[in-house]
Amino acid sequence: MNYEDLRSECCEANRLLPACGLVDLTFGNVSVGDPAKGIFAIKPSGVAYDQLVPTDMVIVDFDGRVIKGKLRPSSDMPTHRRLFIGFPGIRSVVHTHSRNAVAFAQAGREIPIFGTTHADYFRGPVPVTRALTTGEIEGDYEWETGNVIVERFAGIEPLDIPAVLVRNHGPFTWGGSTGKAVENAQALEIVADMAIKTLSIHPATPPMGDALIGKHFLRKHGKSAYYGQPADIV
Amino acid sequence: MNYEDLRSECCEANRLLPACGLVDLTFGNVSVGDPAKGIFAIKPSGVAYDQLVPTDMVIVDFDGRVIKGKLRPSSDMPTHRRLFIGFPGIRSVVHTHSRNAVAFAQAGREIPIFGTTHADYFRGPVPVTRALTTGEIEGDYEWETGNVIVERFAGIEPLDIPAVLVRNHGPFTWGGSTGKAVENAQALEIVADMAIKTLSIHPATPPMGDALIGKHFLRKHGKSAYYGQPADIV
Amino acid sequence: MNYEDLRSECCEANRLLPACGLVDLTFGNVSVGDPAKGIFAIKPSGVAYDQLVPTDMVIVDFDGRVIKGKLRPSSDMPTHRRLFIGFPGIRSVVHTHSRNAVAFAQAGREIPIFGTTHADYFRGPVPVTRALTTGEIEGDYEWETGNVIVERFAGIEPLDIPAVLVRNHGPFTWGGSTGKAVENAQALEIVADMAIKTLSIHPATPPMGDALIGKHFLRKHGKSAYYGQPADIV
Amino acid sequence: MNYEDLRSECCEANRLLPACGLVDLTFGNVSVGDPAKGIFAIKPSGVAYDQLVPTDMVIVDFDGRVIKGKLRPSSDMPTHRRLFIGFPGIRSVVHTHSRNAVAFAQAGREIPIFGTTHADYFRGPVPVTRALTTGEIEGDYEWETGNVIVERFAGIEPLDIPAVLVRNHGPFTWGGSTGKAVENAQALEIVADMAIKTLSIHPATPPMGDALIGKHFLRKHGKSAYYGQPADIV
Repeated sequence: MNYEDLRSECCEANRLLPACGLVDLTFGNVSVGDPAKGIFAIKPSGVAYDQLVPTDMVIVDFDGRVIKGKLRPSSDMPTHRRLFIGFPGIRSVVHTHSRNAVAFAQAGREIPIFGTTHADYFRGPVPVTRALTTGEIEGDYEWETGNVIVERFAGIEPLDIPAVLVRNHGPFTWGGSTGKAVENAQALEIVADMAIKTLSIHPATPPMGDALIGKHFLRKHGKSAYYGQPADIV
Repeated sequence: MNYEDLRSECCEANRLLPACGLVDLTFGNVSVGDPAKGIFAIKPSGVAYDQLVPTDMVIVDFDGRVIKGKLRPSSDMPTHRRLFIGFPGIRSVVHTHSRNAVAFAQAGREIPIFGTTHADYFRGPVPVTRALTTGEIEGDYEWETGNVIVERFAGIEPLDIPAVLVRNHGPFTWGGSTGKAVENAQALEIVADMAIKTLSIHPATPPMGDALIGKHFLRKHGKSAYYGQPADIV
Repeated sequence: MNYEDLRSECCEANRLLPACGLVDLTFGNVSVGDPAKGIFAIKPSGVAYDQLVPTDMVIVDFDGRVIKGKLRPSSDMPTHRRLFIGFPGIRSVVHTHSRNAVAFAQAGREIPIFGTTHADYFRGPVPVTRALTTGEIEGDYEWETGNVIVERFAGIEPLDIPAVLVRNHGPFTWGGSTGKAVENAQALEIVADMAIKTLSIHPATPPMGDALIGKHFLRKHGKSAYYGQPADIV
Repeated sequence: MNYEDLRSECCEANRLLPACGLVDLTFGNVSVGDPAKGIFAIKPSGVAYDQLVPTDMVIVDFDGRVIKGKLRPSSDMPTHRRLFIGFPGIRSVVHTHSRNAVAFAQAGREIPIFGTTHADYFRGPVPVTRALTTGEIEGDYEWETGNVIVERFAGIEPLDIPAVLVRNHGPFTWGGSTGKAVENAQALEIVADMAIKTLSIHPATPPMGDALIGKHFLRKHGKSAYYGQPADIV
């Protein structure tokens, strides 16, 4: 992808966030990567969504150097960069402070897998990272935030559970496409809402069984998926 | 009804779901049946509501064969089919992942009958199915989902309680008309919201008494109904 | 007031209910009384709000006879009638199934007076009626509903606490004007929302003190009121 | 600033409140001060937001005398006045009855600092005042409300935690600019919502650590801030 296509796709995805009810004020950002070129486009810091235009997007390389753009990239840029490096299969990263997902992050609790809505998107509970150490906070904070995410996903395939809760902070999601990364952020917030209500009805609700998790995840993902229309129709 | 009327009614009802706040993303579908002909129209799988046109609706017969339509029917089609066969008095089935109803389904708890809003629509608690066995999940999953619903309604008149919660999944509602099936889905979500809040105020709230349940249900249903206008006026 | 003015005011107030977020589906109705003439106008039963026109409003006298109108009055009409007779100072009655107020009615709990928002409208907790007996339910049900409200207000000045929760049912509010009756229905729902959240933070929250209750209620009501603009300015 | 600029800025800020979802009915007001001149503009009492025009704003001096304006100032005016005098660094005060913040005020509980969304705006828990004495309530009530706020901030830098909960009443926020004061009111309501949900998931959630609080607050405030764009760009 050339820079301008990357910026357009990134701008459009950032503007989707408030339309989807995922962000308050300016609490959220999307990046779109081109892993083959080792670059990604990201929202500039602190700019209102409805004022964003494609040329505001900042192009950064995987070493963290700004390649193109006059504005400062999002202060969360190093976290995005760490994820593009750590999870080679992803094309886009979304960070929000969507309220229900933040509540689990603040409580320091994973989102349990209670139902098929969850399993349609995430093949297990949505994990929460460990707290950062004081050294990590006072050092390269946003990069270290990416590090604890990658550390938490040891043994988990990132596209099986394309979401994480950074403790005391909030959610990051990702996907094999920009559209999927944003959709995962929406699904995460919906699933977190349902989980809060489920716990309020029955605090000791057990997680759903493995057979049903696998069934629903694989209805939508992988070779045997049968949800939606064949690719040549849609 | 001819195919095109069935498709139009079905398309319109599906488009109502997001307008009623009942669905997120593409999590829901409506079918409209013609029991005399043994056929029904249903939403195609994974298509956005605002793009639906009547010719997208898939016509399926009660044996599960696609009679008309180029798109794949909703993956939940066999559940709808099972309900049309099991509950002969119904004309339409609605499936959503509306959040409050899903919360009860995930908690594995029926929706208790706490008030007259509930009794205006459902003549008792809204039941929750048993969990499917691993064999049922790995077999003809969506058909078996219909089976556990029908099994749960042994001894219950489906039009007395035109709604069910599939455990770990979400609600299905139905009705003697398409409008009623959609209205029941709305009422279910409202009643579930009220029930969550009631339980948060007073966790041990007892159900309302039988006399008041009967009074309210029969104010709106059956020969002695006196709610609304006489049929020749409206 | 002549019939047509009464009907216009009543129609407009009914149409306000969904605009204020107070009703789902057709769960609510407003009546506007002319106590001097012993009549009131009320919404017809089961008609959608956005289709209401003034001539749909039904004029009923205080003996329950329909004076003017082709449609059936709301099935809750006898409750309104009982309140106009029992509370001579009121001009309008509003009934909704607004969700937070219903939750308290279903829980069988009064709404405690936790803050100044509450005291600006209601000079004490919002009371809940006793349950109706089976005889009352099977008899003249809607009239008896009015009876238990009036019974509950023995010793309470209706305009000091212009709201009640009918147990297992929902709220009725009233006021010295139609505008005030609708505003009280809005305030009740807001106050109920705040109370649910207050109880979720601190279940044993004590009620606020009498001095602050009196201060806030009397800032807005009675001879010493100093909130808003003098009558000759507004 | 001349009177007309002060009134325009004040009018615009008041009209923002309902657009931001911060007020129901007429429960809220904004004042804009000119500390050098010892005056401020404030919303008139009980006037609907969508009818406000700049000339409705009342100009009051720091001694409480109306300098310009035909309408009565907000009944909360003396509280605003007390804050302008007590906190010399502020330019604007916002008072709302936003529902989540009110819930904490009614519960008599500070808003704990659970996450980075909170720390981006408030460098510690949002404090709640003590209850007013009967003497204070029956005396110069609104001035005394300001007094208990100033008393509560002994030892706290007002711009480090630009928000307070008045017990049994609701929130006041302020800022170094009108925009910041309104943004702080929005952030407070969001943070209160997240805190209620966090407590519902895990009632014993501990506050976040000091290192992370300092990091996030100082990312956005003070000399080392690196969030947003340099002042010469924006």
